This record gives sequence, structure tokens and C-alpha cells, in this order.
Amino acid sequence: MEFKISKELLEKLEFLIQENKEQEVLELLQEVHFADIAEVMGEMESHEAIYIFNALDSEKTAEILLELDEEVRVKILRSLSAKEIAEEIDELSTDDAADIIAELPQSRKEEVISELEDVEHAKDIVELLRYDEDSAGGLMGKELVKVNENWNVLTCVKEMRAQAENVTRVHSIYVVDDDNRLKGRLSLKDLLTTSTKTPIRDIYIPKVDSVKVDAENVEVARIMQKYDLEAIPVIDELGRLVGRITIDDIVDVIKEEADKDYQLAAGISQDVEADDSILELTKARLPWLVLALFGGFISVRVLGLYEPAMNIHPELFFFTPLIAAMAGNVGVQSSAIIVQGLANDALSGSLFSRLLKELSLSLLNGTILAILLIIGSYFLLNIDIKTGVIVSLALLSVIIMASLIGTFIPIVLDKYGIDPALATGPFITTSNDIMGIIIFFSIAKAFLGF
Amino acid sequence: MEFKISKELLEKLEFLIQENKEQEVLELLQEVHFADIAEVMGEMESHEAIYIFNALDSEKTAEILLELDEEVRVKILRSLSAKEIAEEIDELSTDDAADIIAELPQSRKEEVISELEDVEHAKDIVELLRYDEDSAGGLMGKELVKVNENWNVLTCVKEMRAQAENVTRVHSIYVVDDDNRLKGRLSLKDLLTTSTKTPIRDIYIPKVDSVKVDAENVEVARIMQKYDLEAIPVIDELGRLVGRITIDDIVDVIKEEADKDYQLAAGISQDVEADDSILELTKARLPWLVLALFGGFISVRVLGLYEPAMNIHPELFFFTPLIAAMAGNVGVQSSAIIVQGLANDALSGSLFSRLLKELSLSLLNGTILAILLIIGSYFLLNIDIKTGVIVSLALLSVIIMASLIGTFIPIVLDKYGIDPALATGPFITTSNDIMGIIIFFSIAKAFLGF
Repeated sequence: MEFKISKELLEKLEFLIQENKEQEVLELLQEVHFADIAEVMGEMESHEAIYIFNALDSEKTAEILLELDEEVRVKILRSLSAKEIAEEIDELSTDDAADIIAELPQSRKEEVISELEDVEHAKDIVELLRYDEDSAGGLMGKELVKVNENWNVLTCVKEMRAQAENVTRVHSIYVVDDDNRLKGRLSLKDLLTTSTKTPIRDIYIPKVDSVKVDAENVEVARIMQKYDLEAIPVIDELGRLVGRITIDDIVDVIKEEADKDYQLAAGISQDVEADDSILELTKARLPWLVLALFGGFISVRVLGLYEPAMNIHPELFFFTPLIAAMAGNVGVQSSAIIVQGLANDALSGSLFSRLLKELSLSLLNGTILAILLIIGSYFLLNIDIKTGVIVSLALLSVIIMASLIGTFIPIVLDKYGIDPALATGPFITTSNDIMGIIIFFSIAKAFLGF
Repeated sequence: MEFKISKELLEKLEFLIQENKEQEVLELLQEVHFADIAEVMGEMESHEAIYIFNALDSEKTAEILLELDEEVRVKILRSLSAKEIAEEIDELSTDDAADIIAELPQSRKEEVISELEDVEHAKDIVELLRYDEDSAGGLMGKELVKVNENWNVLTCVKEMRAQAENVTRVHSIYVVDDDNRLKGRLSLKDLLTTSTKTPIRDIYIPKVDSVKVDAENVEVARIMQKYDLEAIPVIDELGRLVGRITIDDIVDVIKEEADKDYQLAAGISQDVEADDSILELTKARLPWLVLALFGGFISVRVLGLYEPAMNIHPELFFFTPLIAAMAGNVGVQSSAIIVQGLANDALSGSLFSRLLKELSLSLLNGTILAILLIIGSYFLLNIDIKTGVIVSLALLSVIIMASLIGTFIPIVLDKYGIDPALATGPFITTSNDIMGIIIFFSIAKAFLGF
């Protein structure tokens, strides 16, 4: 069923392009879905991708533009005139069109907009460009089917036929009053099953979920997921219907949010992909490593303070990486669960009850691990029981500390409006490493008295 | 717009339940969305949740059942008779109904199915229960609108009205032949804009994406995302239309997959939430910590081998946690990018070219960090230049090693059909810790000759 890029296809295309056999290129790609053509283009040299783009007709190219990696899209757009871009844009729905135009440099933006043929379309796009890209306004499209509460089903169906010409997928039929204020919705089912003479006012469903135009995109995603919506109308401050958001746009938001949290947990601070340039990957990765390095400096200092213990208890220094690693691992686990709970809005109870729960959890986990440590260090590492017990006690304390910090920090960050996912990954590992080492040596010193 | 659970509401409900004022409970919840009622019930004692459930009418309760946390749902279902459960199930769409029945103990399953009123519905549910829950068959529902290619638009609309009675949302109209084999689709737009006498054969779109009933759910998610589909028909081995999957079910798949990868990266091996019991959280967290502990034992052993160096170069032992932490962090970064690339099917090029890129990247990052280390250790830690340079050289080697391992392992795991996300988190941190320490001391020994 699904298309897979083959080496043969790529080589054949490259050959045909080199020989300038446009007709054969088109034949080869005729049955291929535009999302797949975009993928193929991403695998080729720029001039080859541009060749394919120019060979295809504009119905397909507009959709391909949307699916291309941004990097390739920029190159293609650069090779086109403002008028040519405008022709592509004219084929796209308002939200997609606005997304593409938003990527253009300022001067080109205006050129392209002035070249748009459909004035209504252009007006809609300009309106959409006003909104923040991470808000409901930035996600919504203007294509929707709406009817006036004062019409009857017959007028309504007639009007809808006209409106539907501009709408690829009819999700919901929104009902508005004379001032364009959202009143409710008609289901498609109602449309299929009600007699044509019924007045709309009598049959519409007055309860309809909606979001404000300035709502955050993650908030919209949460609402649509929670209430299982496929589309949601967007209203302005006066309750007027200004657009609609469909679930496919929300899928992207959910995916991006999840990817971002995952990357932060792994110490990657920007949205990058494996195929990005080395420079971009470095920008995303180096800052956290530098942070970890400076954290490491602190741990070197702290260990230096305990140098006198080296002669009497060298084994403490052998255990340090183990203690630090456990502190880091426990901290990441605790914070990840909290970050995910916050992201899914599934965190109930007070901060205090959270910490209490984490305390019990870490007592349980910590005790099991401490016992394993005593047994393991006696039998596997030939460490005497006394030292083993002291190290275990330190391990238990460190685990408790790490899990409380891991729970506390993301909740507090979230309270102050900072992305709690920042607290995961290298940040929590590094700070817990240091804390772990300090606690470990303090406890050892207290018991061994060096 | 959105509902937030308030302490006042909970307290009021608890009071009303205690006083057995059912009517007032109902009034309080009348305007509340079922997803929100489910949330409220999740915050209450079992007997209170059961009280609310019994007070509401079955149209609402069926939807609430779906939205409840599994834990609460199990308790509610236990309090109901097989006949009562069957009444709830009768209200649900086939895919949701099958999901709920699948959660019941075997004997109850059969009881409930035998109590179902609608025989067609029951047959559909029994069919769905046959499929693996992670396959297309496990995701799909039986509710769809299909028409025969031999009909005309008028017959079609009539038949559709009848079918639409059982379908809440009409996504697509599928066209089949006399043997129920999927031929194509009719868009809703076509329905609204075509004259009623046209034969279906002339107007349907013969190209329609579909998935096989045994396709994996993540594969279905990828296809629907890639091709921007809101619904996809499911066919059996003979090409017969057996169901459809809608994008809202896919949203859950995407979310779950992302959550799972995130948790694995954080060293949590099972799908848990912050609100799960301490025992369940321990089961998800302890295994990775035990792994890390045993990894720690190895590092203790390795360090013990270098004990003779302690008197001459104690500073090496101060640097060990820093080196281990950097190895861990770099490894997690590298593997996370690969895991995400694999999950999004966005990894191009061979393993060799990947490793080559990672090598350049780690050379760049590693050199910057090594220089920072020389400067930092001289000015901040009073370490002499010679030792600083040796430690930096070791750091650079460790970073290169860690990033190559981080790239290599997930790609190889994926090749052998093992979830590459397993390679992130504590697994990569622990193995890189150990490797880092070994490389660090080997290099130090080679240069310092202790």
C-alpha cells in the first residue's frame, strides 16, 4: 500500500533529469502521492528538486510545498518569482498559505500577497498573518461552512453548496446570528436526516465548544483531545466566528510538544532533527554540555575538599561515580513523571502531598537498592560490611534527596510559568550529581570521622 | 470556556452525596461535559463515584465510562451487573465498546456480550475483539457509510440516510463493489454538489488510501499523518472493506508512543502516571535503577584497579564524576536524536554516513569543551596545564566514544526489531559512564605513566 523511496527510483530520476526528459520524469511520478514526491525531493540535489517542481503542474506543487522540509522549501521558493509563489499560494487553504508566506522575507511577503489573484483569499491570509503562530489564531483556517440561525434548511443547503466549493472537508456546520456571533452547530447527520423546510433555529445544537483566538496552541490541543473534537470554531473577543481549527493541525502540535519535551529530557535545547546541519545540532547540544561541564567543575572542587580522606578511605572515591549516577537517574525519573503529568494536566493534589508520595516511593526504592548495595559490595567488591552499610546509608539519603528535588523543581518552575521540561535532562542530572557527592561525603565523614 | 474542577464543587458534591440528594447532584452536573464528569469522579472516593454514575442517565454514563481512568472504570464496572454493563455498551460505538469489553475478565465478557440487545452491534463487537489491540483491526470501528458502485446518487443518498443513523460522524463515503471490495470513495463535497441522477460509478474517486487489518497501529498513525488523513478504511486480505480508523484514535496512539519514548529516555520502563500507586511506580522505576547500580559496581571495580595512581595523581579521581557525567550526557543526546529520527521515519543515509556525521559533530563539540576544560581547570580549579591538557584529551576521546555508541546502538537495535528507545536513558548513561572511566584512566596512564 505504502510508498517507499527506492535507490533505483532516485537513480532513474537523476538520470532522466540529467538527460532533460521531462515527460518521462512526469510519468514516473504520476501515480506518486505528493507527500512522497516531497520526500523524494528531499533526498535529491537542489537543482534536481527544482527541476521536478517546475515539471509538475501547480495543483500538485502547492501541496508538495507544504510537505517539503523547510530547508528544501526555502530553496525552491528562492528559485520562484513572486508571481509564481502567488500561484502556488492561490491553490492552498488559508492556514497553509499563511504558514508558507510567514516563512518568506518581509519584502517578498508583500510582493507575493500583492500578486494573489483571489482577493477574498488574500484578505483572509493577511488576517491570519496577524496572529501569533503559537496561538489559536495562528493555527486556524478561514475555510468553514456557516449558516444563519434565521434561515431554513433549504436556504441553508443552497448556501452551503456554494460555500462548500471553497472547503475541502466539511467538519461542522456552524450557526451564527446576524452579527456573525457563534450560536451553535448543525451536525452533518442532521443535514442528511432532516426535512428541508425546518427552520435552522429549531434544529441547531446550541452547545458548541469553542476557543478564543488568542488561546495557546497547546491549550487548544488539550481541549480538542479531552473532548474528542475533530474541529473547533475560533471566536474573537466579541464572540464572533473568525475561523476553525481541525484535528490534523492539532496532531502536529501534539507531536511537536512531545518531541520538544523528549529532546529537553535528553539535553537538546532546540527543535532539531538528525538530518540538520552539524552547526545547528551543535547549537542545540553544546549549551547543555557546557552547563554539565561547569557542574563538573563544582564536583571536582567538592571532591578536592575531601582529599585528606583518600589515604584512609580510598574506596569512597571509587563509589563516587556510582552515587552521582544514581542521584542523576533517580532525579530524571522523578522529574519526567511530573513533567508528563503537568503536560497532560493529570496532576492532582497539592505540592506537599506530591512530595510525601515521592518520599514514600524513594524510601521503598532506596531501601531495596541500599540492601542490594550492601550485598553487592560485600560479595562482588570485597568491601567490608561497615563501609558497605555507610555507603548504603548515603545512597538511601541521596536517592531521597534526588527524588524530592526532581519532584519539586518542575512543579515550582511550572508555577512561575517556566517550561518544567527544562528541569529534566542535564540540568537535574548535574545538580543532583553535585548534591549527591556532597551528601555522600558528609555522611561518610560523620560515620568514619576522617 | 473550559471547565476546571474546583475544590468547592467537589466538597458540595460530597456533601450532597452524603445527604443522598440525588436530584441536586444531577442539577449540579447537568451542564458539565462527560469528560469533565469523568475527571470529577476520578477525584472522589469509589462509593461517591459509583453514586454519581448510578444517578446519571445511560446516554451520559456510557461516554463517561470511556473517559474514566482505567482504575476508576474497573471499580465502576465491578459494581454493575452484566446486564447493566451491556446497556452501557449498547450506547457506544463498536470500537469503544470492544475496548471496554476487552478489559473485563473472560467470564464476564461472555455474559455481557450475551446481554447485548442489538445483535448486529454485538456481532461487530465480537469481530473486533478478535484483533490484536495494537493492530489496525484493534483500532478500527465498524461504523461507516458505504455505497455500491452500481447505485446512482439518489439511491445512494437514501441508503446513506439510513446508514448515517448509526454513524455519529460521517468522514468519508466509501464505494464498494458487489463483493464488498473497496473501490474508492465519494467526498462529502461531491455529495453536496452533484445532481442526484449521476451514477456512482461515474463520480467516485478511485484512488483511496487504505490499510490492511493486521497493520501495526504506529504504522497506521504514520500513514495518516503523512497523508493528512482524517479517516482511513481498513481492508482484509481479500481487499474487502471491514472497518475504518479515525484520526482521534490516532491522536491517542501518537500521544502514547511519544509518552513511552519519553519515559524510556528517563528510565521508566512501563506506562505509568504520576497518580499511579507507589507499587506500580516502583515496578516501572526500580529495574533501571538496579541496572544502574550494577553498572556502578563495575565502575567501582575499574576505579579500584587504578588505586596505585591515587597517591601521585589524586586529581584524576576528582575528575572522574565529571568525565562520567559528560559521557552520559553526550550519549543520551546522540541516541535521543537517532531514536526520534527512527520514530518519525526521518533518518536518511547509511549507518556509516550517520557515524561519520556524529564523529564530526563530536569532534567539534568535544574540542570546544576540551578547551573550556583546560581554561577552567587552570583558572578555577588550580590544576596545572599538563594535567589539564591530559584530562581534556581524555574528555575529547570520551565524548567521541560516547556519541558514536549513542548513535550506533539505537540504529542496530532498530535493525533487529528491538525498540531503539530502550537504548536511551539509564542504559546508555550507565554503559557510557563505565566506558568513559576506562578511557579516561587509560589515557591518563599512557601520558602520566603511573
